[in-house]
Amino acid sequence: MVKKVAVLVPNPVNGSGLFQYLEAFFENGISFKTFAMAESVNVKTNSGVSLQTDDVVANLKGHENEYNALVFACGDAVPTLAENAAKQYQDTITVIRNFGNSGKLLAGHCAAALLFDNAGVAQGKQVALHPYIKQIVKNCKGTDSKFVVDGNLYTAQTENTIPQLIPFLLKALKG
Amino acid sequence: MVKKVAVLVPNPVNGSGLFQYLEAFFENGISFKTFAMAESVNVKTNSGVSLQTDDVVANLKGHENEYNALVFACGDAVPTLAENAAKQYQDTITVIRNFGNSGKLLAGHCAAALLFDNAGVAQGKQVALHPYIKQIVKNCKGTDSKFVVDGNLYTAQTENTIPQLIPFLLKALKG
Repeated sequence: MVKKVAVLVPNPVNGSGLFQYLEAFFENGISFKTFAMAESVNVKTNSGVSLQTDDVVANLKGHENEYNALVFACGDAVPTLAENAAKQYQDTITVIRNFGNSGKLLAGHCAAALLFDNAGVAQGKQVALHPYIKQIVKNCKGTDSKFVVDGNLYTAQTENTIPQLIPFLLKALKG
Repeated sequence: MVKKVAVLVPNPVNGSGLFQYLEAFFENGISFKTFAMAESVNVKTNSGVSLQTDDVVANLKGHENEYNALVFACGDAVPTLAENAAKQYQDTITVIRNFGNSGKLLAGHCAAALLFDNAGVAQGKQVALHPYIKQIVKNCKGTDSKFVVDGNLYTAQTENTIPQLIPFLLKALKG
């Protein structure tokens, strides 16, 4: 059965990362819904383009059971997300925890592994992540790999290595 | 001097292709403006996400001299563009011709080379392009290459090979 994916979109989001996931899902018949980590669905890319998500993360909370997988699309907003959008950050961590505790697939690039770690759902797992945060993650094992698949965690180092992760992600989501 | 880039956005556009260009430009300090090949700035990605461009192609016509380069971001709309958006198609061809006849840099992937060919600005040049249209281009030489740089033409086979073209494109735009 093809799985349904919830996609978390920070504001701003790296458009290259976000749309590598979304176009691959579209082309492979995998349904998804985008959720802004913001108060409204109006967000911007790092590059300044305005776009609209389907909904906001506050409305994903409590509806995690409607989805089989969660993707975290990183962006320049993430380093200051906890300070600038405290409520959305807490909602995001809660949602990630609820997916992870159900053993559902979690995917993302760049700082995604840090959020999975903060949510407590990456214990003992190997992850790919931005080199800057390799020493910051606590309960998972940061690697120098371009991408890593370890159990239900699918991580890529940056948006530039998502192409290497995508085939494994599609196989899992179509399986 | 860093060059200013006009980016043509069909409706729908492949978001992965579009934002690989835009995020690379943003990260490298290259200014750009997006122009929808549509009546309004409200367009969608192939994957169904609504986004807004800066302007529409009709307003780029006659202002080509304000830009040093043109990027054509392909999308699922392109095969039927001439039928579904005749005016925007004509404006697009005119704009491409005006850039090309000035010897300015033209870049794009997938069906971009076909539009460059139709505009008459690819004569004798080698191009990378979607395999489906390799036999359709008339005055340029369709190749099986992942990407090709030939004079002022920078082309990639599909959105998946844009990463190989980007370093050459950035060098030209920053040079």
